[in-house]
Amino acid sequence: METFSKDLLDAARGFIPADAVVKNALVFNPFISDWECGDLAIKNGLVLGIGTYNGKTEYDLSGSYIIPGLIDAHVHIESSLLVPREYARLVVLHGTTTVIADPHEIANVTGLPGIEFMLAERSGALIDIQYLLPSCVPATPKDMGGAILDARDLQQFIGRDGILGLGEMMNVPGVLAADPAIGDKIQFCAIRDGHAPLLRGHDLNAYILAGIQSDHECTRRDEAEEKLRCGMYLFIREGSTEHNIADLIGLVTPKTVARCCFATDDCHADILFEKGHIDRCVRLAIGCGLEPELALRMATLSAAERFGLSDRGALTPGRRADFCVVDDLHQFIVKKVFVMGKEVQPVHSVACKSPTSPFTCRLPSADELQISGSGEARVIGLVPHQIITDSLRYTLAAQDIPDFHRDILKVVVCSRYRDKECAIGLVHGFSLRRGAIASSISHDAHNIIAVGTSDAEIRTAIEEVIRLKGAMVAVVGERPTILPLDCSGLMSTLPYPEVVGRLQDLQMVTEHMGSIDDPFMYLSFLALTVIPSLRITDQGLFDVGESANIPLFLH
Amino acid sequence: METFSKDLLDAARGFIPADAVVKNALVFNPFISDWECGDLAIKNGLVLGIGTYNGKTEYDLSGSYIIPGLIDAHVHIESSLLVPREYARLVVLHGTTTVIADPHEIANVTGLPGIEFMLAERSGALIDIQYLLPSCVPATPKDMGGAILDARDLQQFIGRDGILGLGEMMNVPGVLAADPAIGDKIQFCAIRDGHAPLLRGHDLNAYILAGIQSDHECTRRDEAEEKLRCGMYLFIREGSTEHNIADLIGLVTPKTVARCCFATDDCHADILFEKGHIDRCVRLAIGCGLEPELALRMATLSAAERFGLSDRGALTPGRRADFCVVDDLHQFIVKKVFVMGKEVQPVHSVACKSPTSPFTCRLPSADELQISGSGEARVIGLVPHQIITDSLRYTLAAQDIPDFHRDILKVVVCSRYRDKECAIGLVHGFSLRRGAIASSISHDAHNIIAVGTSDAEIRTAIEEVIRLKGAMVAVVGERPTILPLDCSGLMSTLPYPEVVGRLQDLQMVTEHMGSIDDPFMYLSFLALTVIPSLRITDQGLFDVGESANIPLFLH
Repeated sequence: METFSKDLLDAARGFIPADAVVKNALVFNPFISDWECGDLAIKNGLVLGIGTYNGKTEYDLSGSYIIPGLIDAHVHIESSLLVPREYARLVVLHGTTTVIADPHEIANVTGLPGIEFMLAERSGALIDIQYLLPSCVPATPKDMGGAILDARDLQQFIGRDGILGLGEMMNVPGVLAADPAIGDKIQFCAIRDGHAPLLRGHDLNAYILAGIQSDHECTRRDEAEEKLRCGMYLFIREGSTEHNIADLIGLVTPKTVARCCFATDDCHADILFEKGHIDRCVRLAIGCGLEPELALRMATLSAAERFGLSDRGALTPGRRADFCVVDDLHQFIVKKVFVMGKEVQPVHSVACKSPTSPFTCRLPSADELQISGSGEARVIGLVPHQIITDSLRYTLAAQDIPDFHRDILKVVVCSRYRDKECAIGLVHGFSLRRGAIASSISHDAHNIIAVGTSDAEIRTAIEEVIRLKGAMVAVVGERPTILPLDCSGLMSTLPYPEVVGRLQDLQMVTEHMGSIDDPFMYLSFLALTVIPSLRITDQGLFDVGESANIPLFLH
Repeated sequence: METFSKDLLDAARGFIPADAVVKNALVFNPFISDWECGDLAIKNGLVLGIGTYNGKTEYDLSGSYIIPGLIDAHVHIESSLLVPREYARLVVLHGTTTVIADPHEIANVTGLPGIEFMLAERSGALIDIQYLLPSCVPATPKDMGGAILDARDLQQFIGRDGILGLGEMMNVPGVLAADPAIGDKIQFCAIRDGHAPLLRGHDLNAYILAGIQSDHECTRRDEAEEKLRCGMYLFIREGSTEHNIADLIGLVTPKTVARCCFATDDCHADILFEKGHIDRCVRLAIGCGLEPELALRMATLSAAERFGLSDRGALTPGRRADFCVVDDLHQFIVKKVFVMGKEVQPVHSVACKSPTSPFTCRLPSADELQISGSGEARVIGLVPHQIITDSLRYTLAAQDIPDFHRDILKVVVCSRYRDKECAIGLVHGFSLRRGAIASSISHDAHNIIAVGTSDAEIRTAIEEVIRLKGAMVAVVGERPTILPLDCSGLMSTLPYPEVVGRLQDLQMVTEHMGSIDDPFMYLSFLALTVIPSLRITDQGLFDVGESANIPLFLH
């Protein structure tokens, strides 16, 4: 017990001065979802208490609100395109002081060294990064990436600093079938996050019975309410393209708030920079009519309690003095942030040694990109603001693609791990009028994925991704715009302002191409075989409900 | 993970029948503090879920309410005067299926063998008894009973079934002074209950900073609110003589209910039998105007979560199928109880081998019971319905005691462990008009304590306690009425109906003596040196605030 010391206790009792005292602010207390006034006293990075205190340093924060440091209950840092320490530099500005991250993406690409890299990045990060172990590498047995991690691989991390439990269990069919390999992973972790889009009724009961405790994949209110009733923690998500707050926030009441948290899951650095992080969730929730104090409870204590982090989530004696300062509750613009009692100051980016990543694929030939056939075709339908896709059917002839009138484009997936033929499908919803985009991020195997209006531009984009051993690329004609992803083909080791700048460039180019917003985020989910309905992997079109590959044309 | 089995998952999915299904009842769901309808399916003692299910056994509970098994967040089973298995037989009838017990009393008398006895009694008990390790044996260094338990003594229990953490830390001055012996006990337990009557402000901050997480000693609303704000779990108590619900229940709101539980602390068997257990708390709380659903949340999930018991507290998939059935929410009379999916049936009492207890004291001589002097005397004042006492002052002469007019009687404490002189004090509030009572229960050292209207009757009562090696005795003239306490002088090994009967006899006799209700419970607290204000031990009068022995007369 680091808090059981004469020095700290004497300071709490007011016998000796605190290190720092924050005066004249209203302090949010999530235990009562209400505000406190009084001096907030801090020593050794911990809260001594609220009362009448003197400190060696005193801050006058008259007229401000102090909120315990915000917590993201579920995030893949890789999706920011930043390495963890850069990610921390960015999100801390928004008041985030703790994230619960699942290094699922890098683990799928580079396996154990990827997890070790993410753990090593904790040291020196401006916020506390806590990890859950990626439970599904690969996501399903059919979805091979760069690694297979079994229970023994994961178990070696148990007990290490920064490891809290088991990350989102996506293999729902495996759980329901009582797959012993999954049972092995579940049994040594007390904390087990879930991932069960649209799972309901008896099968939801079975999934929870198996030991899964949370879900961040709800898109519908009745679905979320059922999960809450069944005892799941509900992580209400607002990512780059996954917008669930407006639909779900009505479920949060004083009676349910202890079981509800915010999560961002997948958010590109430009969105984090421009729109915010958990502060954005708080603003959106308040904008939807949620009482500010309930939004703050979600963002602080509810998340801390879900993960057994009894050392944070509130500014009560003995907890970490992590907090942010805002002047207006409804605008909720974070003005200052304190971590372990010290105001966060700008720091420089630090170079990191990122793990090597395999890129043993080859550029598909022009012939390989050809498709043929006609009749009723299966087309992946993007769902605006959601991670799920529709399984659409259009009557068409292959030679008519791209079909600008009906917004149907070619989508190509090339294995990045194996020298084999690429898979080709069709997608509706990107709205590209010219050019092509490609990326080395495609959940969860992270093969190369491209969508475009011409085979030539698709090939140029893929060629750039391969040449750079990972990148996001937009091509119009022969001119590429690029964000290199030198860390495992998933993240950039550049400082976050540069990554944000390049993402803004890409956004400009894709806008010029006629694209919807955030096309790379939608693109990255097209291969995600654990979320309904229709997907495409390096093995072809994939029907999630049937858990089977299916042909492009129905007959 | 016992729940990760094909058999259970198939049953949850409805592929094979459940063991039992409860139909047509409303099921309380504490995650939303609301009601569910649907079949409650059970297999292997666990909940499969609510939905449409078929079972090998089906119960039609039309018109009934089903509540997850009630939980007592803090109790000393010894105070019931029953051994644990008898206690379980009694409280299960009231819907209790889990208690968090601190074997503090028996540990003070017999040390480690006492704790082992209480642990052994878990097996075969009708409810689940979970223990916290008694943190303060003796309660304070000045309060010697039959044992001293240090951190090493306690640590050997960690990891054993039925041990959850550290019981109420009563040595507040020791905590505030950062006594290393207390630090040693705190550091190996994640769960640490508190005991801090009237502690406020800076010192409360320090006590929490030291690692203490809960309190069940609040008697005032502002005190309880402060503790809640500081992040303590609040156990709102209703014992035999400790009545805190009426004063504190107003603090329970949808925003705070997750941090509030019920506790009984000290309750004699007759009160449990006649008035109930946690069901009584629920009734009282509802009677005070608390929304029934919030009272039920406190009595179920809030208590389970406080102790990390994620396998109970709600009837959701994978949790224990412990529940009780009531027909009317406001009357809240428990009609049936199920533990691990099976309806509780009457069982016979089983003999137990109780630990021997020391009784090496002798009967004080008539001379020893004399007091002399006159002037301003310190008198212990009972506070009706509370465990605290007042420190009163009366001008009197020793020879005028008993003073029936001002209700001042003689109170005597004899060490049960050592052959030494007894201590004599004065007490106001028992209202005895004749006779004397004595008992081998006097928290926390459990010496022999007696109060009475004549020295002869006091001696007769003490003589009976010694002869029986533990008892509660009421004497009028020479005629004793007795409940033998053959288990360490604290509990009876008789079946609970007999103990209840004898307690009712004692109640009748003491009523006839003119006594207030529950005189033995008040008597048992007169030696309790960890609760304000004035107490008496075998070493004489004790001022709790000063932590010092003081003389009977002021000068």
